[in-house]
Amino acid sequence: MRVPAYAAPAAGRPLGPTTVERRSVGPDDVLIEVTHAGICHSDIHTVRGEWGPQPYPLVPGHEIVGVVAEVGPSVTTHRVGDRVGVGCMVGSCRRCAPCRAGQEQYCVEGMVATYGGVDRDGTVTQGGYSTHVVVAADFVLRVPDGLDPAAAAPLLCAGVTTWSPLRHWGAGPGRRVAVVGLGGLGHLAVKLAAALGAEVTVLSQSLKKQEDGLRLGARDYHATSDPDTFTALAGRFDLVVNTVSAPLDVDAYLSLLAVDGALVNVGAPAEPLSVDVFSLLTNRRTFAGSMIGGIAETQEMLDFCAEHGIGADVEVIAADQVNDAYERVLASDVRYRFVIDTATLR
Amino acid sequence: MRVPAYAAPAAGRPLGPTTVERRSVGPDDVLIEVTHAGICHSDIHTVRGEWGPQPYPLVPGHEIVGVVAEVGPSVTTHRVGDRVGVGCMVGSCRRCAPCRAGQEQYCVEGMVATYGGVDRDGTVTQGGYSTHVVVAADFVLRVPDGLDPAAAAPLLCAGVTTWSPLRHWGAGPGRRVAVVGLGGLGHLAVKLAAALGAEVTVLSQSLKKQEDGLRLGARDYHATSDPDTFTALAGRFDLVVNTVSAPLDVDAYLSLLAVDGALVNVGAPAEPLSVDVFSLLTNRRTFAGSMIGGIAETQEMLDFCAEHGIGADVEVIAADQVNDAYERVLASDVRYRFVIDTATLR
Repeated sequence: MRVPAYAAPAAGRPLGPTTVERRSVGPDDVLIEVTHAGICHSDIHTVRGEWGPQPYPLVPGHEIVGVVAEVGPSVTTHRVGDRVGVGCMVGSCRRCAPCRAGQEQYCVEGMVATYGGVDRDGTVTQGGYSTHVVVAADFVLRVPDGLDPAAAAPLLCAGVTTWSPLRHWGAGPGRRVAVVGLGGLGHLAVKLAAALGAEVTVLSQSLKKQEDGLRLGARDYHATSDPDTFTALAGRFDLVVNTVSAPLDVDAYLSLLAVDGALVNVGAPAEPLSVDVFSLLTNRRTFAGSMIGGIAETQEMLDFCAEHGIGADVEVIAADQVNDAYERVLASDVRYRFVIDTATLR
Repeated sequence: MRVPAYAAPAAGRPLGPTTVERRSVGPDDVLIEVTHAGICHSDIHTVRGEWGPQPYPLVPGHEIVGVVAEVGPSVTTHRVGDRVGVGCMVGSCRRCAPCRAGQEQYCVEGMVATYGGVDRDGTVTQGGYSTHVVVAADFVLRVPDGLDPAAAAPLLCAGVTTWSPLRHWGAGPGRRVAVVGLGGLGHLAVKLAAALGAEVTVLSQSLKKQEDGLRLGARDYHATSDPDTFTALAGRFDLVVNTVSAPLDVDAYLSLLAVDGALVNVGAPAEPLSVDVFSLLTNRRTFAGSMIGGIAETQEMLDFCAEHGIGADVEVIAADQVNDAYERVLASDVRYRFVIDTATLR
């Protein structure tokens, strides 16, 4: 089955319309008619070859929402007509300790990425900038009725990427959480942390988006370009979630942590960072990383979002606006996530 | 009350005999007749001024064991004749959240160090290379009868410094713990982790001390000078306790961690370290620091050691051997801790 898609023909080349082959629906597979595909910053890095060589042509997109069009005979968890989602993974070994613990993203054999990965059948995976995808049912999420499908798409990557560390490091009532950076990831981190009951502070380069930050649920908003911020907030937070991929002064952010506090990076700068171990010894601080989230916790997050009326703030675009959107993402000129209406691909 | 002691007269000068003033025993104080004082690597850094300027003359020593000689009228926890110990702290504010949580070492106002600190009465504290110390009862530990006093002295710093992260990060049955460096701290880390039921591996520069490592309780022993070690042990450990203060390749040690594993430094190199955030994102790894331990957990550790027959492996020396011992510590020529028999000061 060949289906319309939007692909990068080579590293550094603009994306354009094409078609890609989708495998026929196997016993455990779900065929999804894609309605929305979010644009993640990592799509841009990947298709441009900045994270290593890729198989081209490459269809990005790992924030996928759609409707089930067909299910294989063994599938019991999804039915034709269901609203569903797919995130960053479409497979894993399912046998190793992390897989059995619901942490498929840390699969010992390596998870199968939604695009640019190698699937069980040896084919290269192609992502959600497309009218249809075929995905193993275990990696298909239920999108609850209450969620707007366009606003739900970014939850599949940006949502769970921030949800997972918030849950793992115990964001909730009585806990002070800082979110570094108010972009696609950051604005969801603020909404989720606030809905979990934590006291949320945004740490952004300037005060430009302060009004937004407070509207999204933050109690405080500080500019990191002001050195007084680090003095005033020293030792204040239990958790600092850093959504910024640019390199930053790790010691300065560690200094904001209380005893047993954690600075958790969900993005990775290309260059190594410098850490003074004294920053870690003081207050028994932790510097950690977190990568997306497992399938069960992605479902938990979607259910939580439906219950709390949380979706991404999105700007819906047509497929032929993708290249412009990429430039605007790089210029931080979006509040806060582009989502492709994949009907425009048909 | 002036008492004999061994002090550094100035930065970089050898230690020599002197006398120091001890305050009279206040209502909450305990006068301890010191019997043993361990030599900690940090004594050397401190008296040599390598960790910043110090008040001289300075009497080091924060691994103190002795016998109670007198107690103030309000003291109910210790009696004359009791075997007791003092570690790295002799005071803290006792009101802040960390103090109330039994983490006096992370006191918001700063703990009072056993030597070179400023005590409540404004005087400079002087350490355990001395015949007597006067310490607030709250910071005096009970040394259980079963423990040899010389072997117990290093438990007060080296012991609790490794015990605290082992406990905090859950060393126990079914957990794989690596100890980096087999010195004063490392040899106790191995004994404690093994007694807690963990599967212990020593990672040492060479295999020189392998026999010791296995005798102390390790199941495995690997040389870190062999690059194959890092390939063979990739993703293996739940906890890596790094007792080495020299700078090391953080990413290489992080690569040894399983999902949710932690690399915990208990010493600090003088220079900042380089960390690739991808090392943290993979397996949701943690890089953390841990500084000594609280008073309650120090007591817990001493009781555990008595129950399991654990003491440091020590070489007992006379006070006038201290300067030679310092050189041997710096040359790693001790298995595994020097302890001063303070009777030789009288």
